[in-house]
Amino acid sequence: MTLLLATAVYAQSPADRIIERELASTRAYETLSYLTDNIGPRLSGSKGAELAVKWTTKQLRDWGFDVRNEKVMVPHWVRGIERGRLVSHNDQKVVLTALGGSIATPAAGITAEVVEVTSYEQLAELGRAKIAGKIVFYNKAMDMALVESGQAFDAYGKAVIFRGGGASKAAEFGAVAAVVRSVATASLRTPHTGAMRYDEKQPKIPAAAITTEDADLIHRLIAKGERVRMQLVLTPKMLPDVESANVIAEIRGRERPDEVVLIGGHLDSWDLGTGAIDDGSGAAMVMETLRLLKELGIQPKRTIRGVLFMNEENGLRGGHRYFDNAAKREEVHKHIAAIETDAGAAPPVAFITTLEGAALERIQSRARVLSRIAPIQFTSSKHTGADTSPLTDAGVPGFGLVPDPRHYFDFHHTPADTLDKVDPKALAQNTAALAVLAWVIAEEGL
Amino acid sequence: MTLLLATAVYAQSPADRIIERELASTRAYETLSYLTDNIGPRLSGSKGAELAVKWTTKQLRDWGFDVRNEKVMVPHWVRGIERGRLVSHNDQKVVLTALGGSIATPAAGITAEVVEVTSYEQLAELGRAKIAGKIVFYNKAMDMALVESGQAFDAYGKAVIFRGGGASKAAEFGAVAAVVRSVATASLRTPHTGAMRYDEKQPKIPAAAITTEDADLIHRLIAKGERVRMQLVLTPKMLPDVESANVIAEIRGRERPDEVVLIGGHLDSWDLGTGAIDDGSGAAMVMETLRLLKELGIQPKRTIRGVLFMNEENGLRGGHRYFDNAAKREEVHKHIAAIETDAGAAPPVAFITTLEGAALERIQSRARVLSRIAPIQFTSSKHTGADTSPLTDAGVPGFGLVPDPRHYFDFHHTPADTLDKVDPKALAQNTAALAVLAWVIAEEGL
Repeated sequence: MTLLLATAVYAQSPADRIIERELASTRAYETLSYLTDNIGPRLSGSKGAELAVKWTTKQLRDWGFDVRNEKVMVPHWVRGIERGRLVSHNDQKVVLTALGGSIATPAAGITAEVVEVTSYEQLAELGRAKIAGKIVFYNKAMDMALVESGQAFDAYGKAVIFRGGGASKAAEFGAVAAVVRSVATASLRTPHTGAMRYDEKQPKIPAAAITTEDADLIHRLIAKGERVRMQLVLTPKMLPDVESANVIAEIRGRERPDEVVLIGGHLDSWDLGTGAIDDGSGAAMVMETLRLLKELGIQPKRTIRGVLFMNEENGLRGGHRYFDNAAKREEVHKHIAAIETDAGAAPPVAFITTLEGAALERIQSRARVLSRIAPIQFTSSKHTGADTSPLTDAGVPGFGLVPDPRHYFDFHHTPADTLDKVDPKALAQNTAALAVLAWVIAEEGL
Repeated sequence: MTLLLATAVYAQSPADRIIERELASTRAYETLSYLTDNIGPRLSGSKGAELAVKWTTKQLRDWGFDVRNEKVMVPHWVRGIERGRLVSHNDQKVVLTALGGSIATPAAGITAEVVEVTSYEQLAELGRAKIAGKIVFYNKAMDMALVESGQAFDAYGKAVIFRGGGASKAAEFGAVAAVVRSVATASLRTPHTGAMRYDEKQPKIPAAAITTEDADLIHRLIAKGERVRMQLVLTPKMLPDVESANVIAEIRGRERPDEVVLIGGHLDSWDLGTGAIDDGSGAAMVMETLRLLKELGIQPKRTIRGVLFMNEENGLRGGHRYFDNAAKREEVHKHIAAIETDAGAAPPVAFITTLEGAALERIQSRARVLSRIAPIQFTSSKHTGADTSPLTDAGVPGFGLVPDPRHYFDFHHTPADTLDKVDPKALAQNTAALAVLAWVIAEEGL
């Protein structure tokens, strides 16, 4: 009886075994739980990020892997006090958070009139005459119809441009600070942080995200014809770069070990929450894929390499460092695919991929066993992930795991990105999908 | 043609006219908008509360009412710094807010081990041996099944006891501070404040509410067998009492002006949000009921008196002052009904009332025109409102307007209690329901 059962198990394909074992497991969730609950926020340069590198390295070693720490210098930006109030309206509090990379205000803050715009065109039309000395308020809401139709990342892309570049655009016309409406699909007065970058040709001015409620408040007051003056106090600091690392481990290929299927997520997180959906889940999926393949004794033809990238959020230094080192070793084109998971852990609905046409049809066919996990579609996209973008820009076929995105931006970059937002079953489904796709490509190619 | 239309209008009953006019109006919303957007938070003793008394008084006078400011001394508690971190777990931030009335911690904060309990029985079982020197963490979640069945206020009542009395109960066993799980039906790391009271027989210890996410985090760490130590820094202050006022205006009865149907909401709010649902909406409904009746020239047999109570949230001084003055003038039993609206502004679903049996059936029948607004039921309840509780305790028939309560505790006592949570149409429906019930009782009695 035992022998018969054992035979039945071994008759299953590796993909079937991956799926059955992973869907019955909470191991990915346990890994995520340590990263988020025991370590907590993991912004580049922080103690949390350092602990995450150490713990994931130790954990993978305990599971029997050779682990490599690929050194990389990362930015060390530290949030300080952040405070806003409407001095024109009874000193009402404005709930806000500094954007990552923002400079500080003077200690006493900046107090100025708020000018609302919804586009760069409108900003340019107002020009220096109306903008100089003011706080520019970018009030661009996410397109909820697009979000509900499943295109949340497109809606995000359209709304987020002001977070990234709005401060320097406003500075071009003499603004003294910029505030952006949080890029959010839900809010309970919840600020959404995220990276901003300065145009070196413009003066640097402080930048913050205000909650959608505060954005609506200021909009309504201005719409009533009232003059709105805000005081903004931000005290972040940019400290010297810190040495950190990408964490790398792999299942060596049994026939073509120098051909690599990369699976990657990022280890750093924003500082407000504990980075459960962004991207503790991705890191946990990558670690669990490696652990599971080893446990099951599955060794595909080609190598499956797991990379826990450092500094995706505010620099992408880890992604660039990985690529630069691969380029130095002339190994970029040994990567036959790069699969990134950095979109949360809701139930999986798709893989986006840079493949098109016949190649797209081929992988759809080869990976059809994914339907045992969930109805997972393959869809073409130019961009399949940030950390792997240097690879895909160089022509490596890219894949991005897409969990249902409709609620991702409820929590993304907020204090509410915490473990309770992740369902262990959905995380296991995502892990199984990642592991199966990696196995299929490593075994059968593209 | 004009004459015919006018005749048709005048043939309508006053209740029909109230409903038609109010449902086509956004006046209640405009009033609410000024209270929340232009004035903002209105905690007793604050500048916002003072402005609210002045502005509502002026507004009602502008509408042609004789307005009385009924003086009352109110507490003046001011929130300070509030900060928590898990010193045992990488200094992770704990998102929390001081409970109203809490004393401060020492400037350096209190650092101690956290002991989790879900009941006073469990606290007593642990006793002084396990509690002395610790921070007691009351982790009682709201019963979501009860909330979803429409019994949100019952679920609130069961969960909120630890917020009110938990600190002193913990102090009885030597605890150095108390934290409670936010009494919440939704959270994006959202702290819910609210009043707490000290038992004068026990040492006073600081008390805060942590978000449901932070409660879950601490619970999970303790469940893993880990020792959790927290630092808590709170710097609130209780300043000397401040003179404030209930704001009172009325439509005098045409036949029995000394018989009063009171309609009341409260003007103060917590300080974290702008008190749109709690209870700017109620105050706006009361003001708009008065304005509308005057505009329509509707003067019922008995007086309809609107009272905007001060200090419902952290003292109920306004409610008691109103009652005490009425008692001095021997006018308590001239109140033939007291209708309170302090449960938000979702679409109306019910009136709770202290009436039972035949009296309940009679009002249901007399007020059946309410069905033109929404399917509004009457249900018996011992408690129909806080500000009017001194009156109903003395035997005055009480009524409480009940908007759909299922999402009330998503926002209640949080920074997210802001104008955007109120739908102007639902606010108009509630106002119409309040105005119609007041008119029916003032005209036809109970």
